[in-house]
Amino acid sequence: MTNVHEKVVELAKRRGIFWPSYEIYGGVAGLYDLGPIGLRIKDKIVRLWRKFFVEDNDDMVVEIETPLVTPSRVLEASGHVENFTDPIVECKKCGRVFRADHLVEEALKINAEGLKPEDLTRLIREHDLKCPVDGGELGEVRLFNLLFRTQIGPYSSSVGYLRPETAQGMFTSFRRVYETFRQRLPLGIAQVGRVARNEISPRQGLIRMREFSIMEVEFFIDPESGESPPFERVKGERLKVLTAGEKEKGGSPSEFDVEELVTERIVVNPWMAYWMAVASRFVKALGIKDFYFEEKLPHERAHYSRQTFDQIVLVKGEKVEISGHAYRGDYDLNRHSSFSGEDLSVFRKYEQPKVVKRKSVVVNREALNKEGKDFVKEFMSRIAKMTPEEVEEALRRGETVNGRPIANYVTIAEREEKVHGEKFIPHVVEPSFGVERSLYLAILNAYTERKDRTLLLLPKEIAPYQVAVFPLLEREPLVSKAKAIYERLRTEFETIYDDSGSIGRRYARVDEIGVPYSVTVDPQSLEDNTVTIRDRDTWNQVRVKEEDLITALRKLLYENARLESVGIPVSGTHE
Amino acid sequence: MTNVHEKVVELAKRRGIFWPSYEIYGGVAGLYDLGPIGLRIKDKIVRLWRKFFVEDNDDMVVEIETPLVTPSRVLEASGHVENFTDPIVECKKCGRVFRADHLVEEALKINAEGLKPEDLTRLIREHDLKCPVDGGELGEVRLFNLLFRTQIGPYSSSVGYLRPETAQGMFTSFRRVYETFRQRLPLGIAQVGRVARNEISPRQGLIRMREFSIMEVEFFIDPESGESPPFERVKGERLKVLTAGEKEKGGSPSEFDVEELVTERIVVNPWMAYWMAVASRFVKALGIKDFYFEEKLPHERAHYSRQTFDQIVLVKGEKVEISGHAYRGDYDLNRHSSFSGEDLSVFRKYEQPKVVKRKSVVVNREALNKEGKDFVKEFMSRIAKMTPEEVEEALRRGETVNGRPIANYVTIAEREEKVHGEKFIPHVVEPSFGVERSLYLAILNAYTERKDRTLLLLPKEIAPYQVAVFPLLEREPLVSKAKAIYERLRTEFETIYDDSGSIGRRYARVDEIGVPYSVTVDPQSLEDNTVTIRDRDTWNQVRVKEEDLITALRKLLYENARLESVGIPVSGTHE
Repeated sequence: MTNVHEKVVELAKRRGIFWPSYEIYGGVAGLYDLGPIGLRIKDKIVRLWRKFFVEDNDDMVVEIETPLVTPSRVLEASGHVENFTDPIVECKKCGRVFRADHLVEEALKINAEGLKPEDLTRLIREHDLKCPVDGGELGEVRLFNLLFRTQIGPYSSSVGYLRPETAQGMFTSFRRVYETFRQRLPLGIAQVGRVARNEISPRQGLIRMREFSIMEVEFFIDPESGESPPFERVKGERLKVLTAGEKEKGGSPSEFDVEELVTERIVVNPWMAYWMAVASRFVKALGIKDFYFEEKLPHERAHYSRQTFDQIVLVKGEKVEISGHAYRGDYDLNRHSSFSGEDLSVFRKYEQPKVVKRKSVVVNREALNKEGKDFVKEFMSRIAKMTPEEVEEALRRGETVNGRPIANYVTIAEREEKVHGEKFIPHVVEPSFGVERSLYLAILNAYTERKDRTLLLLPKEIAPYQVAVFPLLEREPLVSKAKAIYERLRTEFETIYDDSGSIGRRYARVDEIGVPYSVTVDPQSLEDNTVTIRDRDTWNQVRVKEEDLITALRKLLYENARLESVGIPVSGTHE
Repeated sequence: MTNVHEKVVELAKRRGIFWPSYEIYGGVAGLYDLGPIGLRIKDKIVRLWRKFFVEDNDDMVVEIETPLVTPSRVLEASGHVENFTDPIVECKKCGRVFRADHLVEEALKINAEGLKPEDLTRLIREHDLKCPVDGGELGEVRLFNLLFRTQIGPYSSSVGYLRPETAQGMFTSFRRVYETFRQRLPLGIAQVGRVARNEISPRQGLIRMREFSIMEVEFFIDPESGESPPFERVKGERLKVLTAGEKEKGGSPSEFDVEELVTERIVVNPWMAYWMAVASRFVKALGIKDFYFEEKLPHERAHYSRQTFDQIVLVKGEKVEISGHAYRGDYDLNRHSSFSGEDLSVFRKYEQPKVVKRKSVVVNREALNKEGKDFVKEFMSRIAKMTPEEVEEALRRGETVNGRPIANYVTIAEREEKVHGEKFIPHVVEPSFGVERSLYLAILNAYTERKDRTLLLLPKEIAPYQVAVFPLLEREPLVSKAKAIYERLRTEFETIYDDSGSIGRRYARVDEIGVPYSVTVDPQSLEDNTVTIRDRDTWNQVRVKEEDLITALRKLLYENARLESVGIPVSGTHE
């Protein structure tokens, strides 16, 4: 971790944003608590995601909630029991276990993502790699399943796992939601919830956790529908994309209009472009301006995906994946359909009914019965297994049964039928965000140092509070007046009150958690019923009449008004 | 399940409120999905709880979020690994496993809660109870631990469990929250999150689930503080309470003022009464009017509790526990302190510093050094282990070392010290609600049948949507006008639009999910820019001018205005 990570982690502990879970027991790698401030920011981020992905698309998208505990059959069907693995290698001397690909990557400075266990073992042997802790010999690389395993109920045969993604809850309830909601596609099923991945040795704070929250949409579509996504909702959005082709050539991302991604065939389905554009807007709302979408190479993709783009943000000089956009095709519904034996297809109605010709086998019973029971039995057992097309072919070849031409007993009839539509398994486009990761990246991005002080320049929409209220000094009647203003403001704004310590320290505290505006009651307030409003970003202050305070804050918070436009600048500040 | 439960379950499936998880695989007992409508109601209930328990008490209470995955050491400390068990008994013939106490209760019609395994085995033998499925012989009753067990990371020795309550996350982070938030008591730490309990054979729908959400406050107090809870915040609240004493006598609940619970010594701590009063307000806000608090008898209480009240609601003729109120004392912090070796006490400052006398041992080095190295060594090793009081006693007894009186080498000095306070372990009051259980009880309570139709008469505050907008018929220009009104309303209200099917069916649909008001655009709307507002509860309609619609809805939704006060009654309805 670089210096700035350490500083953010220190700030997070000090200000109640996040800290390692079970700290008094020494913590558990990959598990973190969100403190009072962190949870407020998280809730804002989730609400913002819900606005962009669900509410703004509520003609197509609904949200549900399904359990973490998942019976093994579901994750066998999804392929996770087989494929959700990481390669590990154990030191023969100390018994420590390492992610084999990471160990190889660090030692050899190569990209080892997606390499098979035998390839990793070969690399370890060829380069004589040893245990990074005690130099011991390393064993064979093997796959470790990242599902947390458990037992459901009192029977040990009833194996369950914690879900590694919310997606399977949407697939297994797809039919129920489809039937109760709109009974037509496209249909998005969204979910925000906890997932668990038993990482080998998570070390990157909130970036790689063993249990975390995820915000996902499984967006079910008819792949043959000509219907275009509502691109007008993401009008003007331009996306930087690094295609797989460019990536292999060592190229860099290029910028595209959303619809260009479709016309240039960069995405396998137009809805991929739509949700990537929505994701782009969402990430900008977190305050992060610098990002691009990187297409995964085939061997880098998850087992269910036909095309994946990672959304990579650049924050404080580092590249981190903030979201994934996978084209899951019909993989999941197909698998669940065959594992559960349930029909998960939907009906595609043709614009015009199609007339199709259907062939059928007509048996001449009269002629057949004349040949005696044994022959009838043998003949019928042969014919019963054949399709009309196979019978037709047999007739063409002049086939016989017991030396008698089958043409004596069967003919092929053909009739026309009107077909109104057909069944098909919907395809799925999946945009997926990690919540704590988004929280961490938003905070890291907002982290700023100025004159030995720390500020979180969070966008107003995700600040933990909108306004702070202070008496200049902790004495009457300043305190009473400040508390009265606090009580009034908190009915409309998320407001925090603080009267302990010097005013400078209090400003510093709210700067550190990113509260955009502070209202201060000072001696002049007692004379002329004015208060000051201080701007977190500039530390400038203006003086406004108490009666205009709510209007002024509305303008600042919701209309992006400049501080100087809502009051009279104060020359000397309180700090 | 009685008839009304079946009807609610059927409605819930049909309208996307809830359904069994993994339905296509036949479901898993005790696991349920919340559908789009159910999740909206749940979110409203959680928001309401947060208002009552956190926001209205935000001078004392903060909310955090901690993981489900918990290392075993934490749940050993909490006592759950040892005590969180249910008695089970297995049929020797078919191998089926049953809750032994439930089996005994059903067969013998007695209350078997809290009976020990040996007592249950004895009852089974005495009454010759058999397997209820195939009449096979039953084995010995044993305890089954209800924690879902798993492994954290790649080492099998690293055992973890899913948390059965959120509380341990608050206890293990208590010190961190205490330090970052107010550094004074009382301090409430709230959490809303998933928990898991591996029930033997859950059969009561959303009432007893294997994984569910919980809303808890761990409220940390100084048990010796004379500070009174802010009873003015729950003024006028009267509580029905069935005390343990009355219960044992077969008595019934009596009604008390909140403060009477304290003065009559019915609660062991005043904060129990405060949070029970808050719980009372919250349950009323769910629409449930009939409930009482029932004190648990000592053998019915959880291992950590010194006093517990269950809040029992009466809905559709049934009694169900909706919340629990436990006085956990210092049990949890004490246990975590000793298991982790960390100091979890806080400092109680005395009003006046106390003067205490402290004794200390003064060694006469000069006299001692004259006796030679070996003697010094032996003498000091004796003295070093003793407290000043023990040395004083030894002097009194004239003890010697190697025949020489210790009085030659040591004296006892006494000095006065000012002590400003003392350390103590905070006590905890815990109000705890199940979310899905609250959701189910609110829906069951709201379930109403009228003229062959079903209505959910949910309080407006927890209805899934506030307003529905319909065109009377699915044709232009009614549809365009209705959509325009929908777009306007949805910026301020939670609004749903529907134009499919007859208007009667659409009214029926929104009645079934409990939307309190429907706005309909009819042919008259095109002439005079009026619309109708229909009331779910009475099916009455009024006509209002389009320009007054938002004001009318605000009055109806937030000011409890009567429908007739916001518009002109319509005589014939659309239905």
